[in-house]
Amino acid sequence: MIETLYWKDNKLYLLDQTILPHEIEYCECKTYQEVITAIKTMKVRGAPAIGVSAAYAMALAEVQGENLEQAGQEIKQARPTAINLFWAVDKVLKSVEQGNTAVDTAIQMEKEDISINKKIGEYGNTVIDDGDTILTHCNAGALACAGYGTALGVIRAANEHDKNINVICDETRPVLQGARLSVFEMQEENIPVRLIVDGAAGHMMQKGEVDKVVIGADRVAKGGVANKIGSLMVALAAKRYNIPFYVAAPISTFDFENNIFDTKIEERNPEEVLVVNGKYIAREETRVENPAFDIVESNLITGIITEEGIKKPL
Amino acid sequence: MIETLYWKDNKLYLLDQTILPHEIEYCECKTYQEVITAIKTMKVRGAPAIGVSAAYAMALAEVQGENLEQAGQEIKQARPTAINLFWAVDKVLKSVEQGNTAVDTAIQMEKEDISINKKIGEYGNTVIDDGDTILTHCNAGALACAGYGTALGVIRAANEHDKNINVICDETRPVLQGARLSVFEMQEENIPVRLIVDGAAGHMMQKGEVDKVVIGADRVAKGGVANKIGSLMVALAAKRYNIPFYVAAPISTFDFENNIFDTKIEERNPEEVLVVNGKYIAREETRVENPAFDIVESNLITGIITEEGIKKPL
Repeated sequence: MIETLYWKDNKLYLLDQTILPHEIEYCECKTYQEVITAIKTMKVRGAPAIGVSAAYAMALAEVQGENLEQAGQEIKQARPTAINLFWAVDKVLKSVEQGNTAVDTAIQMEKEDISINKKIGEYGNTVIDDGDTILTHCNAGALACAGYGTALGVIRAANEHDKNINVICDETRPVLQGARLSVFEMQEENIPVRLIVDGAAGHMMQKGEVDKVVIGADRVAKGGVANKIGSLMVALAAKRYNIPFYVAAPISTFDFENNIFDTKIEERNPEEVLVVNGKYIAREETRVENPAFDIVESNLITGIITEEGIKKPL
Repeated sequence: MIETLYWKDNKLYLLDQTILPHEIEYCECKTYQEVITAIKTMKVRGAPAIGVSAAYAMALAEVQGENLEQAGQEIKQARPTAINLFWAVDKVLKSVEQGNTAVDTAIQMEKEDISINKKIGEYGNTVIDDGDTILTHCNAGALACAGYGTALGVIRAANEHDKNINVICDETRPVLQGARLSVFEMQEENIPVRLIVDGAAGHMMQKGEVDKVVIGADRVAKGGVANKIGSLMVALAAKRYNIPFYVAAPISTFDFENNIFDTKIEERNPEEVLVVNGKYIAREETRVENPAFDIVESNLITGIITEEGIKKPL
């Protein structure tokens, strides 16, 4: 797989995920402010990747000679829902307090992210059967992390264990991370994959074509999981047709303090919905609601696959 | 509202719905074969509008001096799921058998469609409260019929009865009839409307922002209703959050003979999913499932609003 991000000569290079799969281009960040912009514009996205990028943003702030506390405050504002952003900034601050550099800490966190995902994959593999068709929503893949992926990491692990897996990807409007990123990752791995519109997931389940659902998470807290908009409806359909519904996410995604319904759901730019491939799909002045996430209630979730094993929802 | 179709000088003019709302252009049909193509390519779509178009296709066959039985067989093949297509052809054949012309019959059927929709609107209005926010999927509007609409007809009627109604339209991938057509119709009527991606409907319901759901139908039969892909997931979310879920459809949409699960679900061209506004959203060779419809099971449906009153699902 191509790299989601890399650190070189005190600069962070982020794969521009807004133009995938058509173009493969890295955006060079020399300042933490540039990383914030890349997170806001979703050049980098996915909770774990946002976490590692935030750590590198702190590293850049250090290189820039900026006040880390203050830079951290700004970085945390980039996007409100993914808790990994907050987690990463705080982790770097604590590490620096203990005498490490932010740069070394970020490099370490990138490495850890991949090894955590491989552990998630191994635990996840235990609930996947040979021949399973797995439906996933959005992209919780290598591209959503420093590498390997969480939900797609589970599929990768099952594939590495020689299980025959078929994947169905929801396209995941508005930003189409399923169509553009998850399909691409599965094609790169030669794992059979089919693309559907988001509205077709229920139909595929009703027809008996889905054995398991595995998605990622932007935040896990008491009461449920926040994940990409559309996840809730997938979970409701899975419940209806008795299909196991798993969330794959590192412990860094867990918020042990708050209720999930207190999570701020980011409302993004209407243009994300209104403009597709450069053209409006409705009149420019159309009123749009564009929540980026929704909440899957705990009683819809079979288990949360973490690097420490499969856990019950909080 | 602009006209969905009109008959003039022995020709049928169909509003090209593939280019709405950006361009308003009618496609002239001089032969029944041209109408078949327009139905297949979804220049005209929506079960009642397909029915009336099929009747006019029969009228054109008559004008062309073709064998009506044979033309009828071809017309019925245009799209497999909407039962109105079959109903309309058979109705014209029967009327011709009784000594009427196909042209007069089609003109009569167009008029009847509008008056039926107004009756649906009146019955539907009885279940709508002042201040309701109504979510709808796809376009069961004037543009899906000869005029007025079924699901949007209910909203129109409530609006005419001076109820304050807010509408939420699912964009309805892949062909975006919600974004392109339903939003447009509501804007033309000055009824407050918001656009969401299909995946956001569950979230809006979970937040308590939806009071009723009203959708159309392509076929009503024992066990449920076939309607635009994505309808099932909307119904599951409505069930979860105890939101009344209505289907608005004329009796011509009812199939009293078959089980809904025996309905042939049309599988459409992958390009409909893969290409948006002229550009691929995934690699060209991506495998796609593109079912045009899904089935909402009867126990998810509060009532079916018809021109004869509100009925229980079959």
